[in-house]
Amino acid sequence: MTAAPAVPALLSPEDLEAALRAIGAARYHIHHPFHRLLHDGKLTRGQVQAWALNRYWYQAAIPIKDSILMARFESGELRREWRRRIEDHDGRVHPDGSTDTGGIERWIKLAEGVGLSREMVVAADQILPETRFAVDAYVHFVRDRSLLEAVASSLTELFSPKIIAERVSGMLANYDWIGPDTLAYFTPRLTQAPQDSDFALAYVKQHADTVEKQQAVLAALRFKCDVLWSQLDGLYYAYVAPGFVPPGCFVPEDTRTSEQASA
Amino acid sequence: MTAAPAVPALLSPEDLEAALRAIGAARYHIHHPFHRLLHDGKLTRGQVQAWALNRYWYQAAIPIKDSILMARFESGELRREWRRRIEDHDGRVHPDGSTDTGGIERWIKLAEGVGLSREMVVAADQILPETRFAVDAYVHFVRDRSLLEAVASSLTELFSPKIIAERVSGMLANYDWIGPDTLAYFTPRLTQAPQDSDFALAYVKQHADTVEKQQAVLAALRFKCDVLWSQLDGLYYAYVAPGFVPPGCFVPEDTRTSEQASA
Repeated sequence: MTAAPAVPALLSPEDLEAALRAIGAARYHIHHPFHRLLHDGKLTRGQVQAWALNRYWYQAAIPIKDSILMARFESGELRREWRRRIEDHDGRVHPDGSTDTGGIERWIKLAEGVGLSREMVVAADQILPETRFAVDAYVHFVRDRSLLEAVASSLTELFSPKIIAERVSGMLANYDWIGPDTLAYFTPRLTQAPQDSDFALAYVKQHADTVEKQQAVLAALRFKCDVLWSQLDGLYYAYVAPGFVPPGCFVPEDTRTSEQASA
Repeated sequence: MTAAPAVPALLSPEDLEAALRAIGAARYHIHHPFHRLLHDGKLTRGQVQAWALNRYWYQAAIPIKDSILMARFESGELRREWRRRIEDHDGRVHPDGSTDTGGIERWIKLAEGVGLSREMVVAADQILPETRFAVDAYVHFVRDRSLLEAVASSLTELFSPKIIAERVSGMLANYDWIGPDTLAYFTPRLTQAPQDSDFALAYVKQHADTVEKQQAVLAALRFKCDVLWSQLDGLYYAYVAPGFVPPGCFVPEDTRTSEQASA
């Protein structure tokens, strides 16, 4: 006779948080081979361009994803909290009339800073299918799954300050053709991401009050880790090894490494 | 002054068909490096297992995709035509009481024939995120896009008899541990696919009567080619080179090539 599968235990909010952090420790893309090459200065300019080009599609989808999610809150207070994310990426006008151009514009500046044209980046017609399908999966997830799962899928922001710190310091140290202005996208994220994740984590700890909801929350974070991981898989496959670019996608011109470029 | 981008010409139905066939000639996954390794007998048993495991998810989604699409036809006659696809994959009972188990069951038999357990295959919890996202993109496409685009996205069936012939003959010739019973999934497809594509091609040629609709039809076929191509990209990356299996995914045990296995 086969034993019935074990039913997971109902976790305390603190243990749920610990389980979420354990998923990040195991699966967050800080561990991805492509990320290590990127921050260790081992990528060619063309490979960095491919990363910037494809990451733009993810960035451009964030306020769309957050608009869909925001529409699912029935309380104006919760919508105002979630709306901050949209403003962070699409930009805002401050009461004194000054403007913040927003994260998407700063990502386009990063892409220009690594040598791509704005038009080509915004057209987004040379991105990998792997990028497109992973990003679309994320947008559809927040549309089709429960609101709790949608909120939980944002919790990779718990782990992003650490990868941002590694990435910015590594890239500035190891690519002499990349300067701080190019990486300006990341600076506001160091405060925005913790604000976002503080709210989302508290929300999830409050609302995931059954075994089923807790397991769904954990699965939502694993899903989001897959969304990020598979985008880097696609970049590694197409632009590092074996280097088979899918039909119609960006083919880099500059294939020199940093060492070669400065020799 | 920049020249305005050229507006594509309205194509005759015959020229539209030629344009669709040209997309297949350029982008259909018969050209993918993984497919060539598969039919040339160059894969290990573990790599063939990974292919069978992941392809199951695509097969299992087909009748779901077709149910969504069928629901969008307002005519019973068109739904009856499209329903045949669902029966091809989910199975049917004939008037004389005999049954056809359907394509999904035959795929599970293929997976068992290459050494996987039914339970593990049907659980589908070790498949690549690349597989999951590409397949989900296809299901969402037929839900969210126009009916004409949804029908057009099935037109890779125009090209499938050729790849099936290559695959079956190549695998039988080159893997002495794979026999005709294991590949029985493919035999009915040689008549089912042309029946499907005859209808879909005629439908598209009849209904794509504006430049905008024709361009959308061509884009839908390119999209579907991306769905198939990116699944093989994922398999090549994880199981051939560089061989970085994403967190939580199938890790093959048998890494011997056919030559090694029979030495």
